Amino acid sequence: MQRRLAAEALGTFWLVFGGCGSAVLAAAFPDLGIGFFGVAMAFGLTVLTMAYAVGGISGGHFNPAVTIGLTVAGKSDGNAMIPYIIAQLAGAILAAAALYVIASGKAGVDLGGFAANGYGEHSPGGYSMISGFLLETILTAFFLIVILGSIHGRVPKGFAPIAIGLALTLIHLIAIPVTNTSVNPARSTSQALFAGGWAIGQLWMFWVAPILGAVIGALIWKGVGEAD
Amino acid sequence: MQRRLAAEALGTFWLVFGGCGSAVLAAAFPDLGIGFFGVAMAFGLTVLTMAYAVGGISGGHFNPAVTIGLTVAGKSDGNAMIPYIIAQLAGAILAAAALYVIASGKAGVDLGGFAANGYGEHSPGGYSMISGFLLETILTAFFLIVILGSIHGRVPKGFAPIAIGLALTLIHLIAIPVTNTSVNPARSTSQALFAGGWAIGQLWMFWVAPILGAVIGALIWKGVGEAD
Amino acid sequence: MQRRLAAEALGTFWLVFGGCGSAVLAAAFPDLGIGFFGVAMAFGLTVLTMAYAVGGISGGHFNPAVTIGLTVAGKSDGNAMIPYIIAQLAGAILAAAALYVIASGKAGVDLGGFAANGYGEHSPGGYSMISGFLLETILTAFFLIVILGSIHGRVPKGFAPIAIGLALTLIHLIAIPVTNTSVNPARSTSQALFAGGWAIGQLWMFWVAPILGAVIGALIWKGVGEAD
Amino acid sequence: MQRRLAAEALGTFWLVFGGCGSAVLAAAFPDLGIGFFGVAMAFGLTVLTMAYAVGGISGGHFNPAVTIGLTVAGKSDGNAMIPYIIAQLAGAILAAAALYVIASGKAGVDLGGFAANGYGEHSPGGYSMISGFLLETILTAFFLIVILGSIHGRVPKGFAPIAIGLALTLIHLIAIPVTNTSVNPARSTSQALFAGGWAIGQLWMFWVAPILGAVIGALIWKGVGEAD
Repeated sequence: MQRRLAAEALGTFWLVFGGCGSAVLAAAFPDLGIGFFGVAMAFGLTVLTMAYAVGGISGGHFNPAVTIGLTVAGKSDGNAMIPYIIAQLAGAILAAAALYVIASGKAGVDLGGFAANGYGEHSPGGYSMISGFLLETILTAFFLIVILGSIHGRVPKGFAPIAIGLALTLIHLIAIPVTNTSVNPARSTSQALFAGGWAIGQLWMFWVAPILGAVIGALIWKGVGEAD
Repeated sequence: MQRRLAAEALGTFWLVFGGCGSAVLAAAFPDLGIGFFGVAMAFGLTVLTMAYAVGGISGGHFNPAVTIGLTVAGKSDGNAMIPYIIAQLAGAILAAAALYVIASGKAGVDLGGFAANGYGEHSPGGYSMISGFLLETILTAFFLIVILGSIHGRVPKGFAPIAIGLALTLIHLIAIPVTNTSVNPARSTSQALFAGGWAIGQLWMFWVAPILGAVIGALIWKGVGEAD
Repeated sequence: MQRRLAAEALGTFWLVFGGCGSAVLAAAFPDLGIGFFGVAMAFGLTVLTMAYAVGGISGGHFNPAVTIGLTVAGKSDGNAMIPYIIAQLAGAILAAAALYVIASGKAGVDLGGFAANGYGEHSPGGYSMISGFLLETILTAFFLIVILGSIHGRVPKGFAPIAIGLALTLIHLIAIPVTNTSVNPARSTSQALFAGGWAIGQLWMFWVAPILGAVIGALIWKGVGEAD
Repeated sequence: MQRRLAAEALGTFWLVFGGCGSAVLAAAFPDLGIGFFGVAMAFGLTVLTMAYAVGGISGGHFNPAVTIGLTVAGKSDGNAMIPYIIAQLAGAILAAAALYVIASGKAGVDLGGFAANGYGEHSPGGYSMISGFLLETILTAFFLIVILGSIHGRVPKGFAPIAIGLALTLIHLIAIPVTNTSVNPARSTSQALFAGGWAIGQLWMFWVAPILGAVIGALIWKGVGEAD
């Protein structure tokens, strides 16, 4: 279990450090910045790379909603649920702290929202709470369907990290303007802790909607994908 | 059959929600938007991810033209053709409805063409009906060739979703300025229903050209790819 | 042989239609255009997708320089060399013709260089003939090394189209500003025929440099890669 | 050993020529340039393609920090360490020389920093030495974790080049604004030799931080990944 928790902490560190790091450091660089597309690719590649690296140890969740969804679907051991989530939060917070130190090393820097998730006036594009809630729920449901489908025995071994990582990229391509894209309560929590203020106040949604979505996705999968 | 239809509906939902969703929500975001490239990638990744997730259940068509082309090529059961197309349309329309609700949750929003397909004055770049028809036909023909080729026994198992998904990305890299890229009558229908007006009037072309192209592609493949 | 030649013609059609098509139609679209990056990705994906689709039939060269390099390396039958090159040219020219018709279907269109390759004053960034020659030669040499290495028995089956297609993307990421990127005499010839004038006058270089590079790459590979 | 050293030199040539070449030639092209995202993709694809092509010969390090980290982790022969590093430096310097000749073939060109790595006033975004040092160390540590994880027997054969190449892309998506991204002392040395001045003065950091990170990554992996 020790090693599995270390793998989850490492993977979630990488997800937050790479995904939010690319957003904070590189997205809006003048003229040459990577934009939302680059951030979407970065988030996806954190999962793709760490799912190859440590997925064989812990399962490669890196996300409390995924851990809960996989537990509901019967693909993850219930006893591991709470320890996994704690390890994910620890990795995420450590990553946000390291990113905070690095990003602060620039004269006159303003870290803005520090890639925290938000809705309403804190949605990048000004989308409402209802839009954000619905979108986060739907996207996390499909994220779980892709995860459960691609780790199923029907798919040849080795391809799941590609499908899952690129699903996270796709999810970011859709949702950054609406909520800055969570689908992952650990990633939302770590950034909210450093952004403070409104980000803490809106954090509840980025636990409730992703977890709700993950459970829905797991139940859909049990109906559609597991009947044989 | 129930599960196969559910898989087709889920996959086509994801294609429309992700592909058109990225176009409506994220393509033109000021400075940081994902542009046509991001939309092309999103469409491709919807197919890549769902082909891994549920391709083993239904074959992973998510597109009436693909279903018809595969039926012509003898790779899909003729009795499944009409039910598959109905399931695809249901998934697509549900996705467009969900996207409509989400995208409307913003003060003063103008959804414009809602990512509907068009030609002539409704072509993003002002291309004629003939250009659009020819392009949609050629692209769908090659889409079928890539699909039929990559699911053939010559190709090691597991790679087809990568080839097929990225073929759809490539198709969008070429054709968004001309028709907003269909090659998929379900995707065109769902968006036209919500865009209304001209989009309904031009919808015929996004059934005729993709289906014609799919049949041509299937016939080319039978000549070139199946002789042994 | 008939089927192998058809496969080469289809693949080279797709390479020119998709690669040059994305350049002509989508690269410079106002605000949302795909830029050089999108064109680089399109070229690579034409090869990735068709190498899966028909690579098992013809080997998937789609490029006279590749055919010559593989023949020098002993990986392609010498008798096939001339017929392959003719099939590639036929596919490329047909693709350029189709693209010409489609791209012309727009009021007041100016097709400019029609994605032809050039040097000196016809280099997109104004690079000299010597820079272009050296770059095309080096890039084609490494293209052959990647091809020969990834089809070698040391690499598990199925991955070569990914390596080779993405190598072509990489090559375009480097060289579009210098020569518009050839490394493929068929692609240069088809575009020069429609662009006319200077493009015909500079076409010699996009036969000589890629073929020279391909031979060098094949010889390097025979020294480094085949000693066991 | 001769062939292994040639493979390392070829691979590192390609990494510098392709990665730095895309940065120098194509990143800032007016309107259509590939930006930091394109450069990140180019660096990753150099490693992905050459790891397929010659990874089976030499292991595909192309980076002194990787060679040292793999040696610490017991995955690379200690006697090969110094010869590998010399071969990598030779390939890198030759690539920078070729790129210098090509990039100079343009009237009035200013090669600027020639894609050299820097910190403080030579950081693209003006980040401090401490930020750069910390970031390079963390990123190289995770690079080694991804490499060691994806070449482990738990992962099906053939996927490691995808994971490793795209990890390098991800690393560049995060770090170009901070240090121009090294994680590779050979790549930093070759560019500093041609950029001269400040780049030579700051070169020490792009040996120390990547090697420190690589050793830390190898030790983390030995704790987490190898306990069974």
